[in-house]
Amino acid sequence: MAVPPGVSERDFDRALREFENAVGEQWVFASDEDVDLYRDAYSIYKGDPEDRTAAAAVAPYTVEEVQAVVRTANRYRIPIYPISTGKNLGYGGSAPNLSGSVVLDLKRMNRILEISERNASVLVEPGVSYFDLYRYIQERGLKLWVDVPDPGWGSLIGNAVDHGGGYTQPQFRNHFDAHCGMEIVLPDGDLLRTGMGALPGSESWQQYKFGAGPWIDGLFSQSNYGVVTKMGFWLMPEPDAYLTGTVHVPKHDDLIPLVDILNFLENTGVVNGMPRLGSMVGGGRLQSEPELQALLARGASTAELEEYAAVAGRGYWSCTVKFYGPEKAIAANWEYAREKFSAIPGATFVDGESYRFPLTAEQIEDITRGQADGTGDSALPDFGVPSLVTFSAGARSETNPNPSSGHVWFSPIIPRSGEAIIEANRVFAEAAGELGLPVAAAGFSLPATYWNRSFMYLYGFPISEDPEANRRTREVFERLVRIAAEHGWGEYRTAPAFQDTVADTYSFNDHALRRFNERLKDAIDPNGIVAAGRYGIWPRHMRGA
Amino acid sequence: MAVPPGVSERDFDRALREFENAVGEQWVFASDEDVDLYRDAYSIYKGDPEDRTAAAAVAPYTVEEVQAVVRTANRYRIPIYPISTGKNLGYGGSAPNLSGSVVLDLKRMNRILEISERNASVLVEPGVSYFDLYRYIQERGLKLWVDVPDPGWGSLIGNAVDHGGGYTQPQFRNHFDAHCGMEIVLPDGDLLRTGMGALPGSESWQQYKFGAGPWIDGLFSQSNYGVVTKMGFWLMPEPDAYLTGTVHVPKHDDLIPLVDILNFLENTGVVNGMPRLGSMVGGGRLQSEPELQALLARGASTAELEEYAAVAGRGYWSCTVKFYGPEKAIAANWEYAREKFSAIPGATFVDGESYRFPLTAEQIEDITRGQADGTGDSALPDFGVPSLVTFSAGARSETNPNPSSGHVWFSPIIPRSGEAIIEANRVFAEAAGELGLPVAAAGFSLPATYWNRSFMYLYGFPISEDPEANRRTREVFERLVRIAAEHGWGEYRTAPAFQDTVADTYSFNDHALRRFNERLKDAIDPNGIVAAGRYGIWPRHMRGA
Repeated sequence: MAVPPGVSERDFDRALREFENAVGEQWVFASDEDVDLYRDAYSIYKGDPEDRTAAAAVAPYTVEEVQAVVRTANRYRIPIYPISTGKNLGYGGSAPNLSGSVVLDLKRMNRILEISERNASVLVEPGVSYFDLYRYIQERGLKLWVDVPDPGWGSLIGNAVDHGGGYTQPQFRNHFDAHCGMEIVLPDGDLLRTGMGALPGSESWQQYKFGAGPWIDGLFSQSNYGVVTKMGFWLMPEPDAYLTGTVHVPKHDDLIPLVDILNFLENTGVVNGMPRLGSMVGGGRLQSEPELQALLARGASTAELEEYAAVAGRGYWSCTVKFYGPEKAIAANWEYAREKFSAIPGATFVDGESYRFPLTAEQIEDITRGQADGTGDSALPDFGVPSLVTFSAGARSETNPNPSSGHVWFSPIIPRSGEAIIEANRVFAEAAGELGLPVAAAGFSLPATYWNRSFMYLYGFPISEDPEANRRTREVFERLVRIAAEHGWGEYRTAPAFQDTVADTYSFNDHALRRFNERLKDAIDPNGIVAAGRYGIWPRHMRGA
Repeated sequence: MAVPPGVSERDFDRALREFENAVGEQWVFASDEDVDLYRDAYSIYKGDPEDRTAAAAVAPYTVEEVQAVVRTANRYRIPIYPISTGKNLGYGGSAPNLSGSVVLDLKRMNRILEISERNASVLVEPGVSYFDLYRYIQERGLKLWVDVPDPGWGSLIGNAVDHGGGYTQPQFRNHFDAHCGMEIVLPDGDLLRTGMGALPGSESWQQYKFGAGPWIDGLFSQSNYGVVTKMGFWLMPEPDAYLTGTVHVPKHDDLIPLVDILNFLENTGVVNGMPRLGSMVGGGRLQSEPELQALLARGASTAELEEYAAVAGRGYWSCTVKFYGPEKAIAANWEYAREKFSAIPGATFVDGESYRFPLTAEQIEDITRGQADGTGDSALPDFGVPSLVTFSAGARSETNPNPSSGHVWFSPIIPRSGEAIIEANRVFAEAAGELGLPVAAAGFSLPATYWNRSFMYLYGFPISEDPEANRRTREVFERLVRIAAEHGWGEYRTAPAFQDTVADTYSFNDHALRRFNERLKDAIDPNGIVAAGRYGIWPRHMRGA
């Protein structure tokens, strides 16, 4: 049995007994077999002795049990690592930053405590998954949608405190922004409620975010200052209808006005679904068109590529926009969007899918198929439906006989402009060249559009079964983090393996932010027991090690 | 000359010299005449020896000067009280919680540091007022609107960190929510940037809120953990058109479905302007209709009031909804809203104002007139235009020969439901009766609708020139805070005079939130120099006094 760093076997044994007293013997896991399940399934340390492992795991069922476990951990200075469901694959999964931590597994706390159709809000525990909440709503016939990530198997709380995102209207797509009210067990076992939840008998815990005085909620996201045990979220009432449309623009430089017009439409709320940028090589064309492959391989000029796109009858770039709302209003919004995009000479338009709600089972099947084979404009998450369809993309198949063992996400934020996309393509292609990475289609890499006002690149680096290959990937990844930072682009989220490196790039004024975060850590968690090392915040006794 | 509590005259004198060295002699104010200007013009302690006064004021011009002043204050343990422009009348103005503090007046830091029409964002210093920014935008012909409070003379930063609100689209109406990125001078003089601003050379400080790691921004709102020296905000691109419409419903109990339908329309984004609830007694009718006055005076039944409303050809309740967007789309949204409201039997509709943008000078005049005399559906802030028109409401006039000396706001958050409005009317009318307050129209008091998902009541308590009357008002106010809390309703914001009382109502788990806030205070500001007492957070050496 592994023992947490700095803890005697005797103390650890005592602590395990206390954990058992708190949560019941069957919910304390210390065998290698059980504890191995908490490894990161997509670990970039796969096969390496450095792979992060837990010493044990404890799965409480109530807030009081969480408090008891935390108090014991604090008494024996045992590092604990809280997880909700641990499904954030590509960002670390259920494995702790610090090997030898005890995973505090909150999956059993899966109660939907309150749901209001009238207020379109919900209060949940950390173990509630998007599937759980979706099924709960469907069973009761409530006219509510859940903004889900893709895949949708994770926890609402886990995803929100990791700053995750989804696919419906913009006021719901940023999951931490769409929360309202938290409950937290502090590292000393004390219990805190934020916002209006601090007012006993409050009638508006899920209605107004701030309460009175400092708004502390953000402290408990991407951090290690406490264990979130409840969180409220705003849900989307089922809209009337949905519509998509696509604009194609002919020239390389049209990307700049294309993004500017898109931004205007999103920032005014005219486009209120998550848009999708596309290019002449997207949608599987690079694979299916040898002539296109050849053009790219010989480094064809922009003019040649524009010519190819024109002959093929497609845009150099495209943008699919999505609208939710009353049927007539969204038709008018799409008409207005077409007018605005028409400022780009040669812009052409294709009407896309449209639906009235609720969807029929047949429509859901169509959408699932369109998402799986890449032919649809829409995917299940556009309708608040959690799914695991996305996993089929990387699954073993005729065209993919050797699937990777997972991936780790490199995900820098860049400005929301065409110039930034062009510059990011240049910088990352150059870096890829230097680092010996394959570049499928230089110049055509497009960012994700989760949030208004910023873009995010999302590159999945494959995990290998070969530890040496993983070591090399880690080096490349870290180099890319530095290169991005040199260009003013920072990661929005990263796996524990890279959290020190990423935190290091947020270094303004001699790392003032990290120094401040450490000061908070010392005040809130003086023994440094909660999630040591998360996002570069280490307890005092481990700093600089 | 007054001296800060616990500071020797000699030390204070030395500190003033250091302040002068830092900012220039002419920007340190210590004469009674100068310092009196920092009293709260709407002080509920008016005429009372307890009225909060400053010992001096210092007005730095740069961040470096702020750092120097804060370092000096920290060295001599001089309490400082940062203000932006100090215009939050009714919530405390420029006076400190703790008499004898040195006001850190940031009005000279009024630079608009960056503005982007393409990203619809701005980076400002604390002294930038809504008027400043509006004029800056107009002079350059940028197609950007600023979500302004009413009156619009305050500071963007001051209003946002006080959790203030405005009147345009919902994603801009909550001013703290609409911010993106902060810079803060900590109590030890260190300089911190949050979000992407912590990444040197960042290209997305005003594009993505969170950065990586804990999101600490909320700590610096309604608090005393530092001095905010820069803040980014998202602006609203000028929309195509605007439309208003009003629904009238005949019965008292129709308020319940009226609010539910309104909530659905707002939560789905169909109604995207700030709605206004109205009643049969509103719009000056109570003053102009003696028969209506008589009905209320004799406590007429609901049926009698419904009958009066029907005969007068008006609704018992009304709701004016507002729409921004493409002309055809908002017409369709209004049509859809009418359909939804038609579920209430007897609902009738009146089409309201409509505009295309930009507004002409004549249209702005019309709107100003309609706002001033109460006949318009719209007011200047609906169009992002700051104004002082609202002050005319309380000004001396034929019908108001003895205006009050200002007011202090009582502003509890209640749930967003018709039931909550009815219950709040019952509770506050009962309390008013007990406390001897005048009740103009019991049962007809309606909340403000700044934010989706909650309501806020906004009662102005008059300031008197008679200290005894003010003492009595304070007692009544505090009693109302307690009564509201007993019903689960907490203040969203309050003047320093009531911050201890309000903070006291957020008492879950033996005041866990306040204890946590105090722990942060001790860690961030161990000498307790910044804004002692703000929102009930006192430095360690003043607690429980």
